[in-house]
Amino acid sequence: MELAPEDVLVTTGGSEALLLTCLSILDPYTEVIIPEPYYPNYTTFVHAAGGVIRALPTCPEEGYRYAYRSRIESLITKNTRAILLTNPGNPTGVVLDEKEMRMIADVAKKHKLFLICDEVYREFCYDEKFGVPTMARFRDIDQNLVIIDSVSKRFSACGARVGCVVTRNRELQQAILKFCQSRLAVATVDQMGAAALYSVDPEFFLRSKEEYHLRRDLVVSRLRRIPGVMVEEPMGAFYVMASLPVDDADKFQYWLLQSFQDQGETVMFAPGAPFYETPGKGVNEVRIAYVRKREELERALELLEKGIAEYQKTVMNE
Amino acid sequence: MELAPEDVLVTTGGSEALLLTCLSILDPYTEVIIPEPYYPNYTTFVHAAGGVIRALPTCPEEGYRYAYRSRIESLITKNTRAILLTNPGNPTGVVLDEKEMRMIADVAKKHKLFLICDEVYREFCYDEKFGVPTMARFRDIDQNLVIIDSVSKRFSACGARVGCVVTRNRELQQAILKFCQSRLAVATVDQMGAAALYSVDPEFFLRSKEEYHLRRDLVVSRLRRIPGVMVEEPMGAFYVMASLPVDDADKFQYWLLQSFQDQGETVMFAPGAPFYETPGKGVNEVRIAYVRKREELERALELLEKGIAEYQKTVMNE
Repeated sequence: MELAPEDVLVTTGGSEALLLTCLSILDPYTEVIIPEPYYPNYTTFVHAAGGVIRALPTCPEEGYRYAYRSRIESLITKNTRAILLTNPGNPTGVVLDEKEMRMIADVAKKHKLFLICDEVYREFCYDEKFGVPTMARFRDIDQNLVIIDSVSKRFSACGARVGCVVTRNRELQQAILKFCQSRLAVATVDQMGAAALYSVDPEFFLRSKEEYHLRRDLVVSRLRRIPGVMVEEPMGAFYVMASLPVDDADKFQYWLLQSFQDQGETVMFAPGAPFYETPGKGVNEVRIAYVRKREELERALELLEKGIAEYQKTVMNE
Repeated sequence: MELAPEDVLVTTGGSEALLLTCLSILDPYTEVIIPEPYYPNYTTFVHAAGGVIRALPTCPEEGYRYAYRSRIESLITKNTRAILLTNPGNPTGVVLDEKEMRMIADVAKKHKLFLICDEVYREFCYDEKFGVPTMARFRDIDQNLVIIDSVSKRFSACGARVGCVVTRNRELQQAILKFCQSRLAVATVDQMGAAALYSVDPEFFLRSKEEYHLRRDLVVSRLRRIPGVMVEEPMGAFYVMASLPVDDADKFQYWLLQSFQDQGETVMFAPGAPFYETPGKGVNEVRIAYVRKREELERALELLEKGIAEYQKTVMNE
């Protein structure tokens, strides 16, 4: 993407990029449309600015896909200020195709909404057809588009806390810049490290994408061997959302911690409900981050399978 | 001060400590009392949370002192949530004495207000009687008190962006912690550097305080030699606020930049008005940060004296 230096504002991670964007575009009670399940910290950033989240529902049966024009437009009200997406998605791994991206860009343009696109996982797409997807290629939505970026996913540099907000909207740049000035700077030493990362050999990305691809295949195929588990193959990022044959993933997790062990080991995951705005959704779902080594993932999924079987026998049949 | 580990939340500088405190304690239209002149970025943090600043007025003739009980209490309304102080003060260098600190603590306690005390300059007091002042010694205001701290002033490590918010109020700790969790962590490498700073030889503080003491004496005595300048000796921090015999410090600064030079050099300062909430105040005042070497300060003040004389002759007498 072609960018001028002033289009990029360096922030303390993607988190601050999101917070400053929300503070700049939201007033109390204005609304942001977000496909659910979504990264739970979006709630904090939107609420910090006094905004309200309007969840765009999805379901495991449809592979958590959300790019349906009528469903999106049905959520737009006079208070709507923005659509916020993660593409590729966390926690679902959904990747928008070219047509879907264009459709969402059109909706934002037509209804004069900001389109906040969290693209921190864009290098992690496991099908060649996606390339490295970015909304920034649609130059007709320059005034609507805000891209959230970060070094932490791309370079496996989570603790660095260096990200940026990218927009070609001059007025929005000025608003965000005021917040940036109020907190003076992003941590200097981490910024120097982050800048140096941009000169790594491009081979690094290929190798790490290959490795995540293998991990994804392992996790998905292993999950599918567990009776009653429903899982769609994620097309990007390094998460998979799955629904488990248990009554409540949170309760199951407590049980795994307190009452289950196999050779002294157990397994933990992120319960699904906090990724949803709608109460009651995601209760038997989990998010698995395939960021560990393959042999560790193999063992973790073995533990999960054993845990589910024992939980069904001892707790659910009580 | 005696603190438990959970009383200290590490933040991205004192700036984030202030932002998260404001987001945690303020609702839209609630009020914060701040003696003016004050650090202008306080405005951004209070406004980000939807709050309103009620300025506690001071004047150069009284040396910018603000610890007058009746004046403070006259600003308290049913919407007041907090009193926010910088002690020692930026930009004024005012340091509260023991009695004044106790009085303000009493006011906060009586009216059930948070007392947010920005103590980032507490090692920089130039009179032995102050010691290293902190409100944290008043244990009867544990539920009211929030202390803002930072490594940048103490260790001359401005770009590190590592600070903390200190409170013994459990409920407030939990609220701020939620915001901390939403942005995951403070930059790791800078945190490691900051932690290492805490093992520096105590001599470091003595030497740097001595140096700032000499700089303060130089700047104040040199300012007093300029006809028409009004300045009180600051008792702490490393700033001095002065009123100049010019019509408008901002206009004067533009003139210094565009129309004045002495051997190819000119001088800049921070104009006073942005340190005030009240419109029209501080127009002929400036803040000087005595953070440069003494020989540079000497030359800067020589340039200021020459600049004032020429400005009075050529611009003000037009």
